Amino acid sequence: MGQTIIEKILSSHSGQEAYANDIVVARVDFVMGQDGTSPLAIRAFQEMEGTRVFDPERVAFVIDHSAPSPNEGVSALHQLMRQFAREKGIHLYDIGEGVCHQVVPESGRVGPGTLVIGADSHTCTYGALNAFSTGVGSTDLAGALISGQMWFKVPETFKFVCHGTLPRGVYAKDLILYLIGDVTADGATYMAAEYTGEAIANLSMDGRFTMANMAIEMGAKAGIMEADEKTFAWLAQFTRRQFISVSSDPDARYAQIKEYDVSNLEPQVARPHRVDNVCPVAEVAGTPIQQAVIGTCTNGRLEDLRIAAQILAGRRIHRDVRLIVAPASKRIYLQAMQEGVIQTLVESGAAIVTPGCGPCVGTHNGVPSDGENVISTANRNFKGRMGNSKAFIYLASPATVAASALTGRITDPREFLC
Amino acid sequence: MGQTIIEKILSSHSGQEAYANDIVVARVDFVMGQDGTSPLAIRAFQEMEGTRVFDPERVAFVIDHSAPSPNEGVSALHQLMRQFAREKGIHLYDIGEGVCHQVVPESGRVGPGTLVIGADSHTCTYGALNAFSTGVGSTDLAGALISGQMWFKVPETFKFVCHGTLPRGVYAKDLILYLIGDVTADGATYMAAEYTGEAIANLSMDGRFTMANMAIEMGAKAGIMEADEKTFAWLAQFTRRQFISVSSDPDARYAQIKEYDVSNLEPQVARPHRVDNVCPVAEVAGTPIQQAVIGTCTNGRLEDLRIAAQILAGRRIHRDVRLIVAPASKRIYLQAMQEGVIQTLVESGAAIVTPGCGPCVGTHNGVPSDGENVISTANRNFKGRMGNSKAFIYLASPATVAASALTGRITDPREFLC
Repeated sequence: MGQTIIEKILSSHSGQEAYANDIVVARVDFVMGQDGTSPLAIRAFQEMEGTRVFDPERVAFVIDHSAPSPNEGVSALHQLMRQFAREKGIHLYDIGEGVCHQVVPESGRVGPGTLVIGADSHTCTYGALNAFSTGVGSTDLAGALISGQMWFKVPETFKFVCHGTLPRGVYAKDLILYLIGDVTADGATYMAAEYTGEAIANLSMDGRFTMANMAIEMGAKAGIMEADEKTFAWLAQFTRRQFISVSSDPDARYAQIKEYDVSNLEPQVARPHRVDNVCPVAEVAGTPIQQAVIGTCTNGRLEDLRIAAQILAGRRIHRDVRLIVAPASKRIYLQAMQEGVIQTLVESGAAIVTPGCGPCVGTHNGVPSDGENVISTANRNFKGRMGNSKAFIYLASPATVAASALTGRITDPREFLC
Repeated sequence: MGQTIIEKILSSHSGQEAYANDIVVARVDFVMGQDGTSPLAIRAFQEMEGTRVFDPERVAFVIDHSAPSPNEGVSALHQLMRQFAREKGIHLYDIGEGVCHQVVPESGRVGPGTLVIGADSHTCTYGALNAFSTGVGSTDLAGALISGQMWFKVPETFKFVCHGTLPRGVYAKDLILYLIGDVTADGATYMAAEYTGEAIANLSMDGRFTMANMAIEMGAKAGIMEADEKTFAWLAQFTRRQFISVSSDPDARYAQIKEYDVSNLEPQVARPHRVDNVCPVAEVAGTPIQQAVIGTCTNGRLEDLRIAAQILAGRRIHRDVRLIVAPASKRIYLQAMQEGVIQTLVESGAAIVTPGCGPCVGTHNGVPSDGENVISTANRNFKGRMGNSKAFIYLASPATVAASALTGRITDPREFLC
C-alpha cells in the first residue's frame, strides 16, 4: 500500500512499515530544546536518573526565548542549561545566535527524510526541508535525550494542493494564514499537513519555512513538503551530506485533500485573539496600531527583512508606532547588514533587538501596553501572548507589518509596492 | 574675585554673581528625564497641579533604561511617558534611539555655558561640553518642568590637573577610574570636578564624555572641562549655534587641587562592589569572567566600539563568555555598521542589543546568574546593580573588557594591541 511522506519517514526510523494511526517507536536524528523548555527537560532527565545523552552530536540547546536574560529567574535557568550542555558535551547556542528554528536548520543536521523533535511548538518548521519534525513536551524530550528514541502515533496526512502563483504583495505568510483561516485552528489536529502544488514549488525556501512553521496553528503535528532543487541548494550552504527527497506515493492514503488557487489571494490578517480569525487586509485596514514586529521563527529570515526594507526604504515609521525587528539568526543579521537591509530598517525608525525570539513570547524586548494594538509577523496572537493580556495582536506578512508601521494603521502593503 | 566655570555658569543663569556655597535660583536651558524617573516626575507634576511645561522645546524624555519594554509594568510607564510627551508637545526619544546621555548631546541643545538638569545620576556627562549639567530627583524635575528654574547651592570646585599623555592601551576610562580610586567615592561630594591639563586636552570628545560621566562616582555634582576646538567641531555636527567656552579665572578659588602625571598609568579595574575599589589590571588579571558588557552612557560611543573591534577582529570570544554590546545611540549604531565595526563584533561572538542602556541597570538585556563575574564598561558595580545581588561586577575600559571576553579571564588589553 502506498505511503505518505510521514509514513515513510516513520517507517525508516522505526524499522517497521508504518501507516497512519500505527504506534511506532522511532529513533530521532536530532533533538532540540530552548530556554523555555530545556530547564524542565533537564530536571526530568535527572529524575529519570539519566547520566549520558544518547549522542551529544545530535542534541542542541538554544537560548533564544529570553536572550539576553531579562531577569534573575531566567538567568538561573540559562545557567542550568549551560552547565548541563557543558557536562554532557552537547552544543549550546547562547544569546545572540538566533531562534532555534533557524539555527537548527543552519546547523546542517536536518534534511530530507530526517526525524527531529524539539521542545517547542514550532519545531514543525523543518518540514520545509522534507523532514518530519515536531514539537514535544519537556518530559518527552528528557526521555529522548536518554534513549534517542520516541514513540509516535503515525499521523494521518492532510494534503493542501496550492495551484497558481501568489500575486505581487502576497506572500507565504498570507497563504498559510489563509489556509489556517479556512480549515480553522483544529482543522488538522494531529495530522501532517502536506503542502504541494505549483504555488509551493514557486516559494523560496524562506517562504516554505513560514508555511511549515505555522502548521501547528491548524493543529497539525507536522507541516511538510517535498524537497526539490531549491531545498538541496539551501542545504548545500550548511552540509555536504547528500539527501534524497521523500515523496508520498501516488496511492498514498490521505485523511483529507483540499485544493486552492492562490492567484487571487489578498494579503491576510489574523485578528485577535485567534490565529484562525483570518480576513483579507481590507477588512481591518485603518485599525490604529502602536507597535509593529518583524521577526520570529515565522518571518525573521533574510527575505522577510528584505521585503520590509523595500517598503521602508527612504521613509519614516509613523510617530505613534514602535517598530521592533528581530533577525532570526546571527547569520541573517550579518547578511542583512551586508546588504544594507539593517541600515535601511534602522534609518526608517526600527529598533533592532538581538537575534532570537524578540518580543514574540512576551518575556522581554517589547511587551505592549494596555489597550495597544500590535501588528506582528509572528505565529500566535493569543490573548497575553506578548506579555500583556490587555493588548491586541494582529498577525500578517512582513510587507503588511512594514506598511502598517509607516501609516500607523493596518495597511495593505500593495500601496507601497510599485 | 575670580570665578570657576561652575560659578560663572550659575551666575549667568541666576542673574547674580555667584560663588561657592551661595544659594541661587537659576533658569535651566534643558531638562531631561528617562524611563526610570520620568513617570515619577509626571506624577509629581500632576500633584503640583502643573498644566504646561515651561518650554516644550527645552524638554525631552528618553526611553532608554528598559527599551524595548521587558514587562507589563514597565510598558505602562512607557505609555504614561508617551501620553504626557504628546500632550505637552515635548520630544520623546522612544525605544532604539539610545541612551539619554548620548541623544541629548546629539540634539545640539547642550553646549558650553549651558545649564542642564536631568533625572538621572549621570547627567553630569555633558560637562564634557563645558556645560553645567547635573542629576536631580524626579520631584525636582517636576518643579523645573513647570518653572524652568531650579535652586542650587553653588558647588565648590575640585580641580584635577592631568599632565602627560595616556600610554598605549590606556584610556579615559582608566584615568577616571584611577582618579575615583584616588579620591574615593565621596572625595568630591557636591563639588564640581574640573578636569584640566594636557592629558584632558589630548582626549577625544568620546573620552571626555567618559571622564565627565563618572564624576558622580566621586560624589561630584558635576564633571566639567573647558571647551576647545575639538568641542566646537563635535558640536558643529549637531547645531549651528555658536558657543563660547567658559573658563575658570586664574584667581578662581578651588576647594582642592590635585595634580597627576598620567604617562605611566596602567589599565585600571574597579572591583566589586564599589566604584572606588580600583586597582591596576595586573592585580585582578586571571579572574574568570562569564559575561562582558561594552556600552552604556560611559563607554558605548563610536571610539569605544572601535577599540573593542580592533581587539576582537578575527578572533572569537571565549566559549564560556557572553559578550553583550549596546551602542549608545542609533547614530552610533549606524556609524559603527558603516565602518564594519558591528559586523566585526558580531563575528567575534557579540550579541548586540538595542541602542540604549543595555544590561547596565539590571532591568533586562543580560542579567547575570548567581555567582557570575561580569566585566563591564559601565559606571557602577554596586551589589545587585545588574539585577542579581549574587553577581560580581568589575568595571574597566572597552579594551580591557574586549580582551577579557577573548580569554575568559580579566586580561590586560595590551596583550592584544600591537
